[in-house]
Amino acid sequence: MNRRLVVYNVGQIIKLIGVLMILPMIVSLCYGETRCVVSFAIVIAFSLALGFTATIVFKPDKKNLYAREGFATVALSWIILSLIGCLPFLITREIPNFFDAFFETVSGFTTTGSSILTDVESMSHGLLFWRSFTHWIGGMGVIVLIMAILPSESGRSMHIMRAEMPGPVVGKLVPKIRDTAKILYIIYFVLTVVEMIFLLIGGMPLFDSAVHALGTAGTGGFGIKADSLSGYSPYLQWVITAFMLIFGINFNIYYFLLLRKFSTALKNTELWVFIGTVLVSSGIITYSIYPLYNNFGDSVRHAVFQVATIMSTTGYSSTDFNLWPELAKGVIFVLMFVGGCAGSTAGGLKLARVVLLVKIIKRDVKKLLHPRSMPTVKLDGKTVDAATLSGVTSYFAIYIFMMALVFFILSFEPFDFQTNITAAVSCFNNVGPGFGEIGPMSSFSKYSDFSKLILSFTMLFGRLEVYPLLLAFYPGTWAKK
Amino acid sequence: MNRRLVVYNVGQIIKLIGVLMILPMIVSLCYGETRCVVSFAIVIAFSLALGFTATIVFKPDKKNLYAREGFATVALSWIILSLIGCLPFLITREIPNFFDAFFETVSGFTTTGSSILTDVESMSHGLLFWRSFTHWIGGMGVIVLIMAILPSESGRSMHIMRAEMPGPVVGKLVPKIRDTAKILYIIYFVLTVVEMIFLLIGGMPLFDSAVHALGTAGTGGFGIKADSLSGYSPYLQWVITAFMLIFGINFNIYYFLLLRKFSTALKNTELWVFIGTVLVSSGIITYSIYPLYNNFGDSVRHAVFQVATIMSTTGYSSTDFNLWPELAKGVIFVLMFVGGCAGSTAGGLKLARVVLLVKIIKRDVKKLLHPRSMPTVKLDGKTVDAATLSGVTSYFAIYIFMMALVFFILSFEPFDFQTNITAAVSCFNNVGPGFGEIGPMSSFSKYSDFSKLILSFTMLFGRLEVYPLLLAFYPGTWAKK
Repeated sequence: MNRRLVVYNVGQIIKLIGVLMILPMIVSLCYGETRCVVSFAIVIAFSLALGFTATIVFKPDKKNLYAREGFATVALSWIILSLIGCLPFLITREIPNFFDAFFETVSGFTTTGSSILTDVESMSHGLLFWRSFTHWIGGMGVIVLIMAILPSESGRSMHIMRAEMPGPVVGKLVPKIRDTAKILYIIYFVLTVVEMIFLLIGGMPLFDSAVHALGTAGTGGFGIKADSLSGYSPYLQWVITAFMLIFGINFNIYYFLLLRKFSTALKNTELWVFIGTVLVSSGIITYSIYPLYNNFGDSVRHAVFQVATIMSTTGYSSTDFNLWPELAKGVIFVLMFVGGCAGSTAGGLKLARVVLLVKIIKRDVKKLLHPRSMPTVKLDGKTVDAATLSGVTSYFAIYIFMMALVFFILSFEPFDFQTNITAAVSCFNNVGPGFGEIGPMSSFSKYSDFSKLILSFTMLFGRLEVYPLLLAFYPGTWAKK
Repeated sequence: MNRRLVVYNVGQIIKLIGVLMILPMIVSLCYGETRCVVSFAIVIAFSLALGFTATIVFKPDKKNLYAREGFATVALSWIILSLIGCLPFLITREIPNFFDAFFETVSGFTTTGSSILTDVESMSHGLLFWRSFTHWIGGMGVIVLIMAILPSESGRSMHIMRAEMPGPVVGKLVPKIRDTAKILYIIYFVLTVVEMIFLLIGGMPLFDSAVHALGTAGTGGFGIKADSLSGYSPYLQWVITAFMLIFGINFNIYYFLLLRKFSTALKNTELWVFIGTVLVSSGIITYSIYPLYNNFGDSVRHAVFQVATIMSTTGYSSTDFNLWPELAKGVIFVLMFVGGCAGSTAGGLKLARVVLLVKIIKRDVKKLLHPRSMPTVKLDGKTVDAATLSGVTSYFAIYIFMMALVFFILSFEPFDFQTNITAAVSCFNNVGPGFGEIGPMSSFSKYSDFSKLILSFTMLFGRLEVYPLLLAFYPGTWAKK
């Protein structure tokens, strides 16, 4: 393990976070929130000092980055990112408790959107903006961002990108990773701005448009109103719905569309499964909730909005789905696991994995019928290699085990079954709200500090897809040789 | 597909079931339940007639049994078994609705123990005995029984045993399968009788002892009292606890103990994980429920009883665990998935699979650290082959998917989240009771006929570990060539 290189890389991240915090500081400045401005300034100074110290003192001789350095960098960066990111909440005392602030920041960076705030409307603009900005930073990945902006002289490789980008396979769009990262970030940025414009057109105030666009893009879900998006007009809700779906789709598809490679873009199994799932789920939910609203338009709008918010793992809500009938809640619960497409900013298991798992099961059935045959699994016309397949199945096992473990730990809390189970599922899949005590109009504030810490790490494990953090806690990783 | 052979084999099963029904008929005779005796006599005559017709008309020329014939035989046998098995309930009109009777019978054969009866104490002795006897028949497997008693002239092979015996690997104890089947059934029979004697010693009436011994042996769980086993003495509850655990352990271990191969018997990872899980879970539950009982002895007894009943997937209860605190319920919920040991009569995922999944995850972590290494997975000192490992991971996927699907279908019912989710989990893992409306002191009677049918097939899918039934519904299986 090249420890110097890991510390050096983390140092770069710390500097970056200091630079990024300038934006929320400017927002605080605009709103004249002096206490906020000062807090951000302190944290920025601290980050830059720490970052520069790390990169100067630990300048590595060798810059060869292997898998273990990649995983360690990602794991360490995300933890430190969250620790630094929660400082503005603590210093302003707008969130005085460390565990609350840490939970809120992790929830931001991991694009979960679960909150411990009981009165979000009393927060300062600067911190509200910072909260939503963490979604945007975490959505595409902070290390991918570093790769996009820093010169690629160092030996940074696919390893690090693979560790931070969710999904069963990470594809390079172009030969150079740095260029791939840049393209992804440009698409990300442009789509965010387009959403903001659509929101402004619909009469949403500038600040609200900005934070909601950031939250949608990262598929995060922090709202700035107690009732999330219920108070906004149907037009605005439909815009958010559309963009939640857009950000839940593999970004590679947009790249192919830009290149006018339409057939490549549309020959994507996952995309069609995504669209199919959205349509079918919305249909079932509309049927289920129609008696509640007694209006077809409202029922469809709420159904599609909630399907989009859960599948893209954003977590906004247009109504309190905790009060919906069991059928609608059943669909939502199953969708919480599924998540969006690989290569998007969405969390969850990812549809690509679900598709592969179903294909693996089909292959096994064929194999049982013809024991001497060697059936293969194909996706988008290409044969999937055995290593990817076994990676998908064993990731599924660890994915379910982690949620079972978290659910078990949460059982020490006095909450009911559905609250605890959806808390574990929602946090691990980076969705946001759950049922019962943690419904969309409620918060995680009632959980104990210990559970908040557990849930914070649940979100990190979910966002980074387990392995980087698992390796970071494995002593062998840090061995010198 | 050798269809003649499949029909011939199923014919054998139908004859067997006719013969086995003589026992409950005798019980009815002893209690002077005329209507019951007549019903059994009709079904026995019908089964024998049908069975002999099938075996005579469809006597196969070739007796080569391949995997697909094995799976088809098992799937078809179990469905027909359940259809014939429910006739006595229907003819006596003690369960007049077909879906109820089918559910109850499937629940019996699959050793689930979920019931639709609202007043079990009003049932006749003959039918109560039959219900518990189906547990015993289904526990070790009806086709395994056929193999044990019929001369092995036909080409029956491992395929059929593998399809009916749960667990990731089916081991032959002795070179001949027929002898293996015989040994397993003898151990099964003797242990059942021993339990019955222990129950009689504790003052349990003869009839109660018999049905409870049958239910424990098959890890079924049909009780004959409205409050399951709550009304019996602590001694009797401890006896049942001990035997639920005994029947949850791999029977191979008893065989090795009989042969005095103690080191082989004790060098079984799954056994130690089983014991460890029982101890830890019981400890946590005792801690959780102590305030309820305010008595250490009672708390321990109820804790261990419930851990044993859930892990062995029996389903008896010594108290209404639906009223327990969330922590105890959380432990029970997680244990519902785990189940007992492979090679026992217990259901669930099986501890062997859990152990293998954890080892696969560990291997993957090692592989990530050392990408060029080829770490293997060992169990009980032996390297597990790649086919078994990929079988375990993909079975886990199909296992979770099936439960998600069933949960989704049940969401059309008006019951709450925890009722529906535990109904799906409990039926698929052949446990029996769940939480909420289907708690241990309640029944499945409130579900619609459609849901009862779905749950009946859920139990069958769980008992046969999915593949046989999946193949039976796959048209390619039945192709002539």
